[in-house]
Amino acid sequence: MYTHQTKIRVRYAETDQMGYVYHGNFATYYEVARVEMLREMGLPYKKLEDRGVRMPVLSLQCDFIAPARYDDLITVKVTVTQKPSVKMFFSFEVFNENNVLLNTGKMILVFVDAATGKPCRCPIEITELFEQYF
Amino acid sequence: MYTHQTKIRVRYAETDQMGYVYHGNFATYYEVARVEMLREMGLPYKKLEDRGVRMPVLSLQCDFIAPARYDDLITVKVTVTQKPSVKMFFSFEVFNENNVLLNTGKMILVFVDAATGKPCRCPIEITELFEQYF
Amino acid sequence: MYTHQTKIRVRYAETDQMGYVYHGNFATYYEVARVEMLREMGLPYKKLEDRGVRMPVLSLQCDFIAPARYDDLITVKVTVTQKPSVKMFFSFEVFNENNVLLNTGKMILVFVDAATGKPCRCPIEITELFEQYF
Amino acid sequence: MYTHQTKIRVRYAETDQMGYVYHGNFATYYEVARVEMLREMGLPYKKLEDRGVRMPVLSLQCDFIAPARYDDLITVKVTVTQKPSVKMFFSFEVFNENNVLLNTGKMILVFVDAATGKPCRCPIEITELFEQYF
Repeated sequence: MYTHQTKIRVRYAETDQMGYVYHGNFATYYEVARVEMLREMGLPYKKLEDRGVRMPVLSLQCDFIAPARYDDLITVKVTVTQKPSVKMFFSFEVFNENNVLLNTGKMILVFVDAATGKPCRCPIEITELFEQYF
Repeated sequence: MYTHQTKIRVRYAETDQMGYVYHGNFATYYEVARVEMLREMGLPYKKLEDRGVRMPVLSLQCDFIAPARYDDLITVKVTVTQKPSVKMFFSFEVFNENNVLLNTGKMILVFVDAATGKPCRCPIEITELFEQYF
Repeated sequence: MYTHQTKIRVRYAETDQMGYVYHGNFATYYEVARVEMLREMGLPYKKLEDRGVRMPVLSLQCDFIAPARYDDLITVKVTVTQKPSVKMFFSFEVFNENNVLLNTGKMILVFVDAATGKPCRCPIEITELFEQYF
Repeated sequence: MYTHQTKIRVRYAETDQMGYVYHGNFATYYEVARVEMLREMGLPYKKLEDRGVRMPVLSLQCDFIAPARYDDLITVKVTVTQKPSVKMFFSFEVFNENNVLLNTGKMILVFVDAATGKPCRCPIEITELFEQYF
């Protein structure tokens, strides 16, 4: 397992008239957490795309426990839960500044060759990056 | 069970640079489908909010099978899978114009009293609307 | 001049905690209006993109007069104000169901050749479509 | 005049299939810049809302010069161009990491009393914060 934490400030644009973050926006927060994890490990996702790899999302699952609110500085904790293969498995926990757990999530992404549009093996850079953690 | 279908045109703003609809935007499509279902049944969600009821999302689950693309006229099929109580259970299927299944989803929403912020019983209007289907 | 009207239902996702449509979302409503105008004229914007033309936005201007609210069925009135050349000039007026003017806007888009990334002349299909109106 | 700079990382969710940041999303970047400016000055916008003040947008104007792209770490330079009164005037410049000017913008916001929904005078905290700069 490998875990990383990212802090994100909730934007006004992300709230809805209930006064909470619109539930669909957590997908974006999860994206930021995944991307910042890879960046910190030395492999920005953008580099992967530049090399012809795409990582579309296969599944997304969120459980909403407490609302995130405007201007909250939330912490998104992302965990790579399995050794990356054709797919990559992530879990998420989101906390507010009072350390209240706001939601938990899971995502599965798949490696795809941009040229063929078909699933492909995990790029060697990713394999090497994570092998020590599994 | 009660099923309703809504058509939604994919907007440019909803695509990402992969050329697909950004995965997080399906939460919004599901919202539109739920709301249009209630409107067609004679009970716009806005009316519920005006009466002091809120329906925050407890959980969201999506499986992405094939991408939705810009300008696709997608069909979102929403099903109320259980008799509404404190919670309301929905499932979703999204198809493109070629009748390809793009994704499936599930959501659980909870009825909340806006005054107290606490979960509350399903409003009587909702109960009456759905009782013939279960 | 050529004018077209499109109706759009305001989504929950588009509101913010002020209880209004977030101002940035009007750019998307303007997009929908432009696209539906072209579709009605027989030339979906998607077709233009398929032929290698892109229309990035050069400028956007909005004046907000009254708020749009959740579930409003707004009317977006789009006008092509000049004969299309390398650029295309649009103006917008948005009304709610009570015919209250919510905002006005202007946009300039430019035709770009997707292959070169450079501005290009207005495609002949567009020229022919609009010449009778100027 | 008072000027502040904020850095923002472009998210995948903010791109569109043209491979650029969707033009409407700059409104959100401008929001982040305004809010971070106020926070740095010691007066988070959230505090203003907690005291019953709202700042809806009266007008928005953007000129797009060059595209922002996925994962760009953009710098948003916000300037308060006039002494705040009932309205507050902002201008914006957005640069990418190569110091290329991507766009310029202007916004006018108005102070509104949340209780009455009417425009109100600039809160004294704001007046005091900015008086030394004009």
